Amino acid sequence: MNFIAQALNLSKSAAKRLEERNILRKALVKHPFFADIEEAFRFEKKFGQFEEGTVVVKAKDTLKVFRGFPKIRRALLLHPTIKKHFGSREVVLEEKMNGYNVRIVKIGENLYAITRRGLICPYTTEKARILIDDEFFRDYPDYMLCCEAVGKASPYVPTDVYGIETLDFFLFDVRDGRTNKPVTIDEKKEIAEKYNLKLAEIIATVSADDIEKMREVLEKLDRNRREGVVFKDRKMELNPLKYTTSYANQSDLMYAFRFFGEYGRDFMLSRVIREAFQSFEFEEVEKEFNERCLRLGKAILEPMIESIKACKRGEMVYEESELVFENQEVIELFKMHLKLLGVDFTIEVLDDGRVRLKRFMRSTSDRIRGILQGSPWK
Amino acid sequence: MNFIAQALNLSKSAAKRLEERNILRKALVKHPFFADIEEAFRFEKKFGQFEEGTVVVKAKDTLKVFRGFPKIRRALLLHPTIKKHFGSREVVLEEKMNGYNVRIVKIGENLYAITRRGLICPYTTEKARILIDDEFFRDYPDYMLCCEAVGKASPYVPTDVYGIETLDFFLFDVRDGRTNKPVTIDEKKEIAEKYNLKLAEIIATVSADDIEKMREVLEKLDRNRREGVVFKDRKMELNPLKYTTSYANQSDLMYAFRFFGEYGRDFMLSRVIREAFQSFEFEEVEKEFNERCLRLGKAILEPMIESIKACKRGEMVYEESELVFENQEVIELFKMHLKLLGVDFTIEVLDDGRVRLKRFMRSTSDRIRGILQGSPWK
Repeated sequence: MNFIAQALNLSKSAAKRLEERNILRKALVKHPFFADIEEAFRFEKKFGQFEEGTVVVKAKDTLKVFRGFPKIRRALLLHPTIKKHFGSREVVLEEKMNGYNVRIVKIGENLYAITRRGLICPYTTEKARILIDDEFFRDYPDYMLCCEAVGKASPYVPTDVYGIETLDFFLFDVRDGRTNKPVTIDEKKEIAEKYNLKLAEIIATVSADDIEKMREVLEKLDRNRREGVVFKDRKMELNPLKYTTSYANQSDLMYAFRFFGEYGRDFMLSRVIREAFQSFEFEEVEKEFNERCLRLGKAILEPMIESIKACKRGEMVYEESELVFENQEVIELFKMHLKLLGVDFTIEVLDDGRVRLKRFMRSTSDRIRGILQGSPWK
Repeated sequence: MNFIAQALNLSKSAAKRLEERNILRKALVKHPFFADIEEAFRFEKKFGQFEEGTVVVKAKDTLKVFRGFPKIRRALLLHPTIKKHFGSREVVLEEKMNGYNVRIVKIGENLYAITRRGLICPYTTEKARILIDDEFFRDYPDYMLCCEAVGKASPYVPTDVYGIETLDFFLFDVRDGRTNKPVTIDEKKEIAEKYNLKLAEIIATVSADDIEKMREVLEKLDRNRREGVVFKDRKMELNPLKYTTSYANQSDLMYAFRFFGEYGRDFMLSRVIREAFQSFEFEEVEKEFNERCLRLGKAILEPMIESIKACKRGEMVYEESELVFENQEVIELFKMHLKLLGVDFTIEVLDDGRVRLKRFMRSTSDRIRGILQGSPWK
């Protein structure tokens, strides 16, 4: 692992600490599809300036660093949070899409797609090689195209609100892999145009105290079942902030409570706090407030009861998605990748060539089953 | 701390482990009101067979052990849990009251009240000395009267559903302090009658598969805003199980979300899981289910928004109760006791002699205040 210290310019003592803290993990399954990569490791946790999900790659005759995508802090109130953070700067409202965060990069001769935690995903990589013209990387060889991977054929976050049958990429940041410095919004727009990349929609540019416009944008997104907004400094000198719609908070809860053994505890409180501050800020009348409460209660109880009923019928609780592969060998590689992730799954090739992925939620299933069989709780 | 090893009959190595694990804490504030006690320590965690909350006391010429009240496991489904646990035994349904658990014991010449975690509470002790005739302890000197302390003038769980203006004790278990062995339900009834002690209501005795009767009891308790039931083996050879009403689950949530900085995370998931399994088992029709969801959503959002509004008005979030002391010196001692507990409080003597206690919830208040001032979340 000497190459990691070298790639990151670590001092001897820092390199030693990195090893002691044991936060490096394999970033991929070795395979001819990933032929450009000799070795790659990811940071499972933040280390010094290096974000969680940072990847260090040893390629044929070069070492590459791809910094983890930075955590974006959240505004729970638009006022006064946005003004306090952005002051007199121009604030760009971009749509925060509901998919999974990938960094598309070039290593050797090919494109690679790195997920948030720093894993090189074969399925996403295959799609990136098809959909993304690598022209961009001739001009920006060490940059990352930070995209939301969105669509129905998503192995991680399948969604159909965008009308995308398979999977597509929407660019939201262009960053230097080594420094993580982003280009400005204007440069990003130019890049998207020049290299024919789809952008996560830039909805509006406003002053930091134009709460009314922000509210208008968010209410429209909420009605259209969209996730929310990322507020950005037009010059990208300040960190962005995010804000999610009630629709997004409540769908998160539905997801988390369907799989409450896996997700419930961590997810819940934060989503509910978002709802409370939004309801407070939006000064809802009683009818709206009651509707929000009913939706919230349902978002929690309905999915749990569905999972209980599934177990009662003798099924396991699982999440299903249908994927579309171009190469047979990538299916096999993707299976190995899911094993590396520790996912409990089955994969089934359908008559039309699509691939049905089921991710079994063992903790939820086992807990429900125990209770149905008459075990007390704890 | 030699006397602890001696009182518990610990081997040398066990005594050493006990010291290393550092789980002993002071059980009281030294004071003439506690004159019978030279020293007393409590177990902050379980240690071997000794439950959390176990207290070891060095009194004038004796060592006493009062075992912690055992955790009662919870049934999330009546069927098949109760049957599986109790088999062919007679199951006694006792009301689970909503107060705080105390063990009333005799040390030297006086009664003492020990709270769940093993602290000797001056306020509760004062009430016990007034309300409980110590006749019982002449016959059972080393036993504990395990009671729920209930009423409006409660420093920990103020409640007015029982129509008790001050504080009263309801006996639910009689246990040997040293072994934690309980007497049977029939013996407990005799003891209550003989020594004139109030019982937590014994509502019914049923067979373990009489789910209908259990449902009937629970539905009535729910309508009366009561907490739930403890299911007990009439002979007290098997461990009890508990089951709470929807009313109780939802009031817990209201409490936890009012003080979400202090309680939210731990409380929430478990309460919601209880609601889901109850709704599943009770096979609710849509109207009932929607009502449950609305109540649940409100139980979560309303108290949070109330706390946000309080902070917006410049207040701190706090819990208030009004206590009734008999002795002036106990007020001072109780203040020291709250300091020992690490509570952030004020105490104010009202014109009519009652004492208003406010417990400030600093974590909730600080977090809300930060957000109102425009700080992002995390």
